[in-house]
Amino acid sequence: MSHNSFGHIFRVTTWGESHGPAIGCVIDGTPSLLPICEADIQTYLDKRKPGQNRFMTQRQEADQVKILSGTFEGLTTGTPISLMIENTDQRSKDYGDIKDKYRPGHADYTYMEKYGIRDYRGGGRSSARETASRVAAGAIARKILGGDIQIKGALIQVGEHAINRDNWDWAEVNNNPFWCPDKAMVPVWERYLDDIRKKGSSIGAIIEVHAMGLPAGIGAPIYGKLDSDLAAAMMSINAVKGVEIGEGFNAARLSGEENADEMYRDDNNNPAFYSNHAGGILGGISTGEDIICRFAVKPTSSILNPRRTVDKFGEDTEIITKGRHDPCVGIRAVPVGEAMMACVLADHILLHRGQQG
Amino acid sequence: MSHNSFGHIFRVTTWGESHGPAIGCVIDGTPSLLPICEADIQTYLDKRKPGQNRFMTQRQEADQVKILSGTFEGLTTGTPISLMIENTDQRSKDYGDIKDKYRPGHADYTYMEKYGIRDYRGGGRSSARETASRVAAGAIARKILGGDIQIKGALIQVGEHAINRDNWDWAEVNNNPFWCPDKAMVPVWERYLDDIRKKGSSIGAIIEVHAMGLPAGIGAPIYGKLDSDLAAAMMSINAVKGVEIGEGFNAARLSGEENADEMYRDDNNNPAFYSNHAGGILGGISTGEDIICRFAVKPTSSILNPRRTVDKFGEDTEIITKGRHDPCVGIRAVPVGEAMMACVLADHILLHRGQQG
Amino acid sequence: MSHNSFGHIFRVTTWGESHGPAIGCVIDGTPSLLPICEADIQTYLDKRKPGQNRFMTQRQEADQVKILSGTFEGLTTGTPISLMIENTDQRSKDYGDIKDKYRPGHADYTYMEKYGIRDYRGGGRSSARETASRVAAGAIARKILGGDIQIKGALIQVGEHAINRDNWDWAEVNNNPFWCPDKAMVPVWERYLDDIRKKGSSIGAIIEVHAMGLPAGIGAPIYGKLDSDLAAAMMSINAVKGVEIGEGFNAARLSGEENADEMYRDDNNNPAFYSNHAGGILGGISTGEDIICRFAVKPTSSILNPRRTVDKFGEDTEIITKGRHDPCVGIRAVPVGEAMMACVLADHILLHRGQQG
Amino acid sequence: MSHNSFGHIFRVTTWGESHGPAIGCVIDGTPSLLPICEADIQTYLDKRKPGQNRFMTQRQEADQVKILSGTFEGLTTGTPISLMIENTDQRSKDYGDIKDKYRPGHADYTYMEKYGIRDYRGGGRSSARETASRVAAGAIARKILGGDIQIKGALIQVGEHAINRDNWDWAEVNNNPFWCPDKAMVPVWERYLDDIRKKGSSIGAIIEVHAMGLPAGIGAPIYGKLDSDLAAAMMSINAVKGVEIGEGFNAARLSGEENADEMYRDDNNNPAFYSNHAGGILGGISTGEDIICRFAVKPTSSILNPRRTVDKFGEDTEIITKGRHDPCVGIRAVPVGEAMMACVLADHILLHRGQQG
Repeated sequence: MSHNSFGHIFRVTTWGESHGPAIGCVIDGTPSLLPICEADIQTYLDKRKPGQNRFMTQRQEADQVKILSGTFEGLTTGTPISLMIENTDQRSKDYGDIKDKYRPGHADYTYMEKYGIRDYRGGGRSSARETASRVAAGAIARKILGGDIQIKGALIQVGEHAINRDNWDWAEVNNNPFWCPDKAMVPVWERYLDDIRKKGSSIGAIIEVHAMGLPAGIGAPIYGKLDSDLAAAMMSINAVKGVEIGEGFNAARLSGEENADEMYRDDNNNPAFYSNHAGGILGGISTGEDIICRFAVKPTSSILNPRRTVDKFGEDTEIITKGRHDPCVGIRAVPVGEAMMACVLADHILLHRGQQG
Repeated sequence: MSHNSFGHIFRVTTWGESHGPAIGCVIDGTPSLLPICEADIQTYLDKRKPGQNRFMTQRQEADQVKILSGTFEGLTTGTPISLMIENTDQRSKDYGDIKDKYRPGHADYTYMEKYGIRDYRGGGRSSARETASRVAAGAIARKILGGDIQIKGALIQVGEHAINRDNWDWAEVNNNPFWCPDKAMVPVWERYLDDIRKKGSSIGAIIEVHAMGLPAGIGAPIYGKLDSDLAAAMMSINAVKGVEIGEGFNAARLSGEENADEMYRDDNNNPAFYSNHAGGILGGISTGEDIICRFAVKPTSSILNPRRTVDKFGEDTEIITKGRHDPCVGIRAVPVGEAMMACVLADHILLHRGQQG
Repeated sequence: MSHNSFGHIFRVTTWGESHGPAIGCVIDGTPSLLPICEADIQTYLDKRKPGQNRFMTQRQEADQVKILSGTFEGLTTGTPISLMIENTDQRSKDYGDIKDKYRPGHADYTYMEKYGIRDYRGGGRSSARETASRVAAGAIARKILGGDIQIKGALIQVGEHAINRDNWDWAEVNNNPFWCPDKAMVPVWERYLDDIRKKGSSIGAIIEVHAMGLPAGIGAPIYGKLDSDLAAAMMSINAVKGVEIGEGFNAARLSGEENADEMYRDDNNNPAFYSNHAGGILGGISTGEDIICRFAVKPTSSILNPRRTVDKFGEDTEIITKGRHDPCVGIRAVPVGEAMMACVLADHILLHRGQQG
Repeated sequence: MSHNSFGHIFRVTTWGESHGPAIGCVIDGTPSLLPICEADIQTYLDKRKPGQNRFMTQRQEADQVKILSGTFEGLTTGTPISLMIENTDQRSKDYGDIKDKYRPGHADYTYMEKYGIRDYRGGGRSSARETASRVAAGAIARKILGGDIQIKGALIQVGEHAINRDNWDWAEVNNNPFWCPDKAMVPVWERYLDDIRKKGSSIGAIIEVHAMGLPAGIGAPIYGKLDSDLAAAMMSINAVKGVEIGEGFNAARLSGEENADEMYRDDNNNPAFYSNHAGGILGGISTGEDIICRFAVKPTSSILNPRRTVDKFGEDTEIITKGRHDPCVGIRAVPVGEAMMACVLADHILLHRGQQG
């Protein structure tokens, strides 16, 4: 029932504050004999690392992961894997102004209401820095998924600017700083985000994550549904306000004829689908089609323009959040969304094997 | 880790198939000394009951709940509350055609892939009938919430027809068969759904649920977030494909200035918000503003028009799903969404009290 | 986190009071395609049923189990199995005296302190009647274990009278009303318990449960140890005050040389043990030897001799518990202990398969 | 469902191997605003630390704890507390012989059967070194318990030598290297253990832990019983083979009259007990009397005398376990048992507050 854990058999517990000595996670339930080294994890952490280009926070973090337990001679042992990432850039002077004031749209106020205390340095536990632990855990999860299951994420909308899905090209995703699959949209977002950054403002975004190669039959009714666990996993990411599977909210507009994916016998005599409005999940169980999940990320509340707020003494005041912030946190949410997808799928594969063999 | 349970301290386990002898649930963790009788639960079951008007399935179910344990002399005892609803209308001849064929858009195929067997009578465990147990559990949850916390749901979109939010009037919700808060939309939906029903088709919908009166500080970072648990709860409802909190997907279009809710000191010298884009949740913890959650329901896959599919022998075929189906299951999802909101909030109130006193 | 559930993948939730309309359980996580019918469960319930001879309570209960969900055409479907046993003998007049007084040694007082209310009829939720649900769940668990894993329980001590282990003969266990494996002890216990029964007194006992055929490697360090889960499971049975594995408390007297089971290569070239002081578990994981677990049951607190107590108004008083009680509840605890062993092993087999394949 | 976690609201996850870089734990669910510093935890770690006298392993470990998260300015924040203890004495040459051979009575063989790999250095995950994390967690738990609830442990039997309970004096416990409450027994154990140590042998022991000051009403039926959780917690400690509450196994010898604790109205007009055979727990809920729990620890399997065993290639062989071992690991189990008691009680206090307010 731990609030800082997720997953069932493959279970991840994260800890750490933005400006404490370190952050990290403990990953339990990993099968033994999987080859894992720090470089395997580092690859994914580097994708999420801040300071890589001008569209990200300029905080400089090496985000160097250490494996403290759970492997032996390069293989998992089946015991808990403890991962630690030391915080190196802790310029807490940047955050002095938020010590007493609540940032509108931030968790400052709610943490204080709940706990009567908060580590205000860099957002403390509520900082997006926590998502590094998710990415590290996702790297372990991918080892369980193996080579046959691929997970890919993309940024598909920034502010009003949505990609043209007809242009979708997975190969483009690694060619631009946005994980954008639509080459034509890249220059648009560049200009748009440069403008937002210069204004000291921020903007929301939508991320889409696909999983290819998951066989049919993974997931579990009724409250352990694959989509239910995905919804929880994605919604738990900082700043996420909405989650969709397949057609998502658009399903409200469709008729039964339009929405339901018809089936046929494919060349291998296996059941197959003519379409994938379902996003690969029916009744909480995978269909064998690609799992498709989208989530919306709100704009960072840390902006340079003054906002009305109150302080912890209850007085009306204004706040400007200086410091090094992401104009669009949605960009760095792409590898985080991939990681959460990997963790949920790995867990459900183990769960299915447990119950059904 | 039970797949058929949800919640932490207030924990609900449901069981039962559409055409078995009964369905029901076991509710654990309810505080003692709450007054509860069968009529308290029946009120909410009656809201969800099929066959109440022509826009719902014509299946006739009394949906009469029995309390089998957990109360004594009209009060909860703190021990598990077992609720049972007998299935009375089990005309299984209606479902003969789906015995061997997979309905496109239905869980028939995925259950078979997972389990190698399925109770095909009326959808078995995947039937929306299971949601009666949720509604029953929600009635218990409301007792925990008490009179100060109100939960209200509404249908806000059917197909292309969204309500005009400026017309929102909670008082209207009980005056029409759709739980529609916009009086002007009612005749539109009536004509629209009559047409869909006559065509043997179905249509999707969007439901919005509000909780008023929840104090600030309820919920818990990071993986036990209030919105994370709400997302899982709503996504676990049959046919749901998307969940939003507050601005939801629209947050992607907003700037930090537009999205973040500014604060001020109210007349009682308490912190308050000028707006509620957050939907009452920041950092996974309640702000004291209304909790606002929306979810999208896909159209029923059980339609009268022939669709291409395969049967369990792997042969191409066609299917028409006769029987008594909902042209828009979204309507009956309104009381279900309310119930899930009630259960999640009750659980989080107990959790908060546990950790923080 | 439900207080009324146990197990991880194979998870059992029980409900019901002694004198309510029924008791029952919901069993989640059972693999599909196992053949199960009510008669399979009834066999084990009949072993535990009250009123079978003069050494048990004379309460008359048919203990007829109904399967309400989770099977279809005689096979498990993988969905939750709901089992219900109606209470037929509810002579509540027998229990009138305990309405206001606390029975020494009973949970009357602690339930009242915790909940501020209790269903005093027959002990309510704290009644040993709840163990019928465990026995029913155990019957399902045995289906998962299959024919290669055998579970057998025996009564090995009643009061001061312990069996002679040299006489141990499993075949004798079904030949006497005590599940006694030592033929020579049967007449001793008969006379001893007749005397206790006539005096209106009661006596404690020790039960031993063996599991044969469990392969090595089942269980999980550190807090999901097989022996840790067995200890919790046995201690949760009403009136149990101690649990041992293998040598148990006697291990305190042994040297490392005496206690550690030496190993050798057996005729099939597999590692084997010269002895089984460990009771089949090392480091929380099975060794392949028999799992051996013992637990002690205290004497029933419901006795005919007057005892000093207080009533719920805080006044000093005396109590005599009339009614139909077990002179030695330990006898009926034998099938209950077997059931708990079956449930724990089934769960760990599924867990192991989940993580390790 | 993590195998390396325990507790419900107050939930502890441990990680780390004996000869890896570090061990540690993550503690979730701690209420905020409790004053905690490293010295508070170190006090208890020092009690358990190896190498303090000749009756313990001579491994030299500073066991210096670091708080990595969850506190701010000396107070808990309600977020997960991450504790780390670096391994400084990793003389792995001592353990070379066990690389390929299974130590009889050790988890070497079962880990290999389960995982197909094991970190053989110093026992890896199965090392008693893991218990340092429990002791650290226990220090946090005591902060939740506050000053009114005291937890004290004692060693009451070593081999055949049990203390005389009439001599019990808590003040003596800190005056000898055994946590022995019976002054007269100290020289007996000294001679006895010197002899065992010189022979390169080892011996079992029994520990007793008391909790004073816990109010009545804490705990929860049926599978979350206070004694059920205590049994699991104690049985999860390395080398423990039996757990008892109150009279424990002796309850088997008692009549209902002897065992049940009679009640009376005390001077403050509160219900009280004439005796405490129950060990402070009835029906899984505290009575207000002292909680009394005993557990038996088997002798270390690491002994200097040659034992028959097999190696991982399946060949018959002999083994002598050189190195620095405890002649009686039961001694160092005393602070571990105290810590587990503290963790279970803290968790149940929060759980009770959650459900019952």
